[in-house]
Amino acid sequence: MQTLDLALPDTRYPIHIGRDLLKRVDLILPHLPVPQVAIVTNTTVAPLYLATLQNALENAGIACIPVILPDGEEHKTWVSLNRIFDALLEARAERKITLIALGGGVIGDMTGFAAACYQRGANFIQIPTTLLAQVDSSVGGKTAINHPLGKNMIGAFYQPRMVLADLSLLETLPDREISAGLAEVIKYALLGDDAFFAWLEEHIDALRGREHDALLYAVRRSIEMKAEIVAEDEREQGRRALLNLGHTFGHAIEAGLGFGAWLHGEAVAAGMVLAAELSREYGWLSQQDCNRIGYLIENAGLPVHAPDLGVANWKSLMSHDKKVEQGAIRFVLLERLGRAVLKGDVDDRTLDRVLTGDRVRPCAG
Amino acid sequence: MQTLDLALPDTRYPIHIGRDLLKRVDLILPHLPVPQVAIVTNTTVAPLYLATLQNALENAGIACIPVILPDGEEHKTWVSLNRIFDALLEARAERKITLIALGGGVIGDMTGFAAACYQRGANFIQIPTTLLAQVDSSVGGKTAINHPLGKNMIGAFYQPRMVLADLSLLETLPDREISAGLAEVIKYALLGDDAFFAWLEEHIDALRGREHDALLYAVRRSIEMKAEIVAEDEREQGRRALLNLGHTFGHAIEAGLGFGAWLHGEAVAAGMVLAAELSREYGWLSQQDCNRIGYLIENAGLPVHAPDLGVANWKSLMSHDKKVEQGAIRFVLLERLGRAVLKGDVDDRTLDRVLTGDRVRPCAG
Ligand SMILES: NC(=O)c1ccc[n+]([C@@H]2O[C@H](COP(=O)([O-])OP(=O)(O)OC[C@H]3O[C@@H](n4cnc5c(N)ncnc54)[C@H](O)[C@@H]3O)[C@@H](O)[C@H]2O)c1
Ligand SMILES: NC(=O)c1ccc[n+]([C@@H]2O[C@H](COP(=O)([O-])OP(=O)(O)OC[C@H]3O[C@@H](n4cnc5c(N)ncnc54)[C@H](O)[C@@H]3O)[C@@H](O)[C@H]2O)c1
Repeated sequence: MQTLDLALPDTRYPIHIGRDLLKRVDLILPHLPVPQVAIVTNTTVAPLYLATLQNALENAGIACIPVILPDGEEHKTWVSLNRIFDALLEARAERKITLIALGGGVIGDMTGFAAACYQRGANFIQIPTTLLAQVDSSVGGKTAINHPLGKNMIGAFYQPRMVLADLSLLETLPDREISAGLAEVIKYALLGDDAFFAWLEEHIDALRGREHDALLYAVRRSIEMKAEIVAEDEREQGRRALLNLGHTFGHAIEAGLGFGAWLHGEAVAAGMVLAAELSREYGWLSQQDCNRIGYLIENAGLPVHAPDLGVANWKSLMSHDKKVEQGAIRFVLLERLGRAVLKGDVDDRTLDRVLTGDRVRPCAG
Repeated sequence: MQTLDLALPDTRYPIHIGRDLLKRVDLILPHLPVPQVAIVTNTTVAPLYLATLQNALENAGIACIPVILPDGEEHKTWVSLNRIFDALLEARAERKITLIALGGGVIGDMTGFAAACYQRGANFIQIPTTLLAQVDSSVGGKTAINHPLGKNMIGAFYQPRMVLADLSLLETLPDREISAGLAEVIKYALLGDDAFFAWLEEHIDALRGREHDALLYAVRRSIEMKAEIVAEDEREQGRRALLNLGHTFGHAIEAGLGFGAWLHGEAVAAGMVLAAELSREYGWLSQQDCNRIGYLIENAGLPVHAPDLGVANWKSLMSHDKKVEQGAIRFVLLERLGRAVLKGDVDDRTLDRVLTGDRVRPCAG
């Protein structure tokens, strides 16, 4: 097991990474202000892992309220959130109860938001069960639910007390979800560490094969980079926005195709390719860099070609984003491999070229 | 106009108190990061004051989205909250929009919570229009909505950027609401300032008659005391709990009679009388002190006799409260007039005596 420490102005918390951590209640107990938890999970994860966690906690004298929600991004809504509140209030749970998120990013985001709101702030622990949740969503304190008019529009910044990234849980994860998680891993390399990028080029097959040592390194390095950026800029006033590399294009893909058609990581992957193309237009990346990025993404089992949404549609979808300020879309681009920058004044003609170039393919394809 | 300053560890904000402040956009403009606001109000307040505020803002070049919610505590729910989010997202409002609460505590609590959650934190200004909201709910950053299983159970700590307490708005407020607001004013005197208590004994008629100078002093002194306590203990880890004087009994009255039967301030008033009785049981207050408290509350137009909910029912209702920790009810009692203390170990027999004493009357009465 390895432990990272995320230090923020108001709080700090440990992130444990390793195998067979689900039974390690000794890691959990010090973070429970009262001996009561609610384990929030979903119908897919519960049959796999709920009993292990619940038994371990109950054997240690902790009262557990299991809350099993339906699986899927389409359930990341107020309705599910209210099911958490119902369960807590029916059990007359105190303000100091700990909510444990046992699931992927959907469960983590909802549980964190529920913890932020329950009696104006309950205790919160993340046990991420997808690769994406381990390297990204469980760290940094962004929580949210969706609104019919926009993804993640309703939420809070709310930090967990602890994150337990158990790599063993990834064994049951579908291949497509592993690839989606790798998109975010590649993102970290692209935006801040070219040596990590080269390491990924070497180890991408080992990662897809879930080899423990490769996973441990990739997850640790990813969390380390996220933790460092979040520590500098918890509320996304500045540098944290770099974590959105590929996301402005990616969100447009998700929204344009209808959420659920592509996984978030898949959309981000194709979005990073477009961001790389746009960076090449500015003369920052070489064609060779773009090729390396494309190969790695492809070798991770991810799409390199964005669907053709139509230029006007792309722009309208991208302008409806939390990253927009006073009407201007701010793109995260690459100054070079391993170094991202924010760019607010991308001119229309350059953008059009990228959105109609050969990295974009007719939707039916 | 007088201005108080609430200084918290992470932020500070001004609270302006005076008359005819609704048109004073010069006070509002410095607090708008972008020239767009949503004015959240209700069907009672909108016809009285919305046009004045909206015209003043629009004349200053600020785009306004009015959101008019149904009036009443029963609408302090997720449904109303979602109407705010719908309006914001339909207008594609940016994260930096300012939500202005124009109304009593219900509107203030909901608008503040909406601001806390919209894109994980929009800007927020309070324009409280009831006495209770001016002296209490608009200051200190507690926001919430109700859940069918409990009042204010879902919410956030979220501070406004500014509070505008316009005493002129109180002219249209029903007498019963003025009295309900006075309950909280009396609370401040009881818990921390016996000279203010004596001043209130002198000026209670002037306050009920809405005389400007009396209101200005009472509102300022109340906000000053609340601001001081909140500055010390924003998250209610300690001293802020003293602000709940009368509230443990009061919430039980509200819940026991069904919310809406008594106004919050009325329930708090009768609750403070019980808290005084309980303090007398401990020998802290004299019978004469209790009489003074009873008279002042009565002269404020407030009930001094709690309804008889039945001892077992009282206790069950009181134990279902955010102030409960590990099963123990913590009461706020009076060591003397002007000095409140937290007491966690109130013994059953003493409590029973108070709950069956002559300050409690059959419900039908
Ligand atoms: N908060 C943040 O900073 C942040 C960052 C990135 C993404 N997100 C959010 O995360 C969500 C996506 O997260 P995700 O990719 O984890 O999706 P997810 O939570 O939907 O999980 C993907 C699928 O894998 C299943 N699953 C989870 N763990 C499993 C396991 N161990 N074995 C087998 N199946 C398992 C889930 O039930 C689901 O069907 C989105 O809602 C996105 O908005 C949040
Ligand atoms: N956040 C806090 O710290 C805090 C503290 C105390 C109470 N509260 C909350 O505040 C709420 C009670 O607030 P309230 O007493 O202001 O009730 P309220 O908001 O329901 O207002 C009372 C009534 O007066 C009407 N009204 C408001 N302003 C008016 C005006 N100027 N002229 C005429 N009518 C007017 C309202 O429409 C309503 O019908 C409760 O929900 C309570 O939980 C919050």
